[in-house]
Amino acid sequence: MEYVDEENQYIVRLDPGDQVLDSLDQLRETASIESAFFTGIGAVDEVTLGHYDVERQQYHEETFEGEFEVTNFTGNIGPDKIHAHIQLGKRNFESIGGHCSGARVSGTFELIVQKGETLLRHQLDERTGLDVFDF
Amino acid sequence: MEYVDEENQYIVRLDPGDQVLDSLDQLRETASIESAFFTGIGAVDEVTLGHYDVERQQYHEETFEGEFEVTNFTGNIGPDKIHAHIQLGKRNFESIGGHCSGARVSGTFELIVQKGETLLRHQLDERTGLDVFDF
Amino acid sequence: MEYVDEENQYIVRLDPGDQVLDSLDQLRETASIESAFFTGIGAVDEVTLGHYDVERQQYHEETFEGEFEVTNFTGNIGPDKIHAHIQLGKRNFESIGGHCSGARVSGTFELIVQKGETLLRHQLDERTGLDVFDF
Repeated sequence: MEYVDEENQYIVRLDPGDQVLDSLDQLRETASIESAFFTGIGAVDEVTLGHYDVERQQYHEETFEGEFEVTNFTGNIGPDKIHAHIQLGKRNFESIGGHCSGARVSGTFELIVQKGETLLRHQLDERTGLDVFDF
Repeated sequence: MEYVDEENQYIVRLDPGDQVLDSLDQLRETASIESAFFTGIGAVDEVTLGHYDVERQQYHEETFEGEFEVTNFTGNIGPDKIHAHIQLGKRNFESIGGHCSGARVSGTFELIVQKGETLLRHQLDERTGLDVFDF
Repeated sequence: MEYVDEENQYIVRLDPGDQVLDSLDQLRETASIESAFFTGIGAVDEVTLGHYDVERQQYHEETFEGEFEVTNFTGNIGPDKIHAHIQLGKRNFESIGGHCSGARVSGTFELIVQKGETLLRHQLDERTGLDVFDF
């Protein structure tokens, strides 16, 4: 991971083999991020997607291996949670997507991480079992 | 809906049962928004997708019920129009998407709404029948 | 193409027949952009998708014609490269996506192009054959 720290955002490059969520976690530590929103594109060769079952209050997860273009990676960083969704294109351009529980970079991965002002701490919403923005 | 008003953006949390477009409409009223661009992720259990037929100059719409992860929700807010597109992942991670004519939150929904400076008023483009940015 | 130049971003409208990448190239020239990140939605009637084969170090490309809603168009602009990924919805709302090698506007196309501070020059990563951010 390489990044530059601009006034309002970080610009991040991830490299082959980097785990996207671990890298964001590392950026959070290094840059002391308590509030940020990110968008990215890139390519990955392993991704774990999640789909939340509100009734059972748990994620159904599945790991996919192959070559995927990441058409969109969107989410946010709080001190207690990194939340990301991901959309992918296969070689035949068919698309899959969901909650992102893990993704490993194959080609490159380009992120813009915009700095926020509000502490993005989370609280449990008992109706759904999800940790949601606490404000 | 809960939101915080930062210098350059609003951070918005929607809750189970909230209609996404109605909530944005309410935010527009409350915060007097005349120009904004938004990005969001979340989960919905009912969504109405649209696909515009340029020749007939009308939207073909279909409503889907089920559990969907929203991998991306992107659009903009003007005084006379809220325009949004949405991308969704099903339980098997297959993906559908299109123009968003309606979406009801199931889990949570997290939006960043960035403030613009330019009045996003719309004018009719007679070639297509669409209301487009007037500037 | 019409656009307005705000303090931190450009707001861009593309019109029927406009080529999205050529328009961004033209914006780069006119506005002397050396660093920017964009997000957009719209509709296109011709799109060329790419999928990168890291092993062969080349893009596999395919052109699609039809009516497509663009649910997300994300990327960045450097002086030596414009990099974009695109996600599309068909009339039946099935979705395709990948690297964007070309896209022609049918309805309208709305872009927010955020100004960055860091020169987004690229260098060859010999491991993958890709031109990646050089910083």
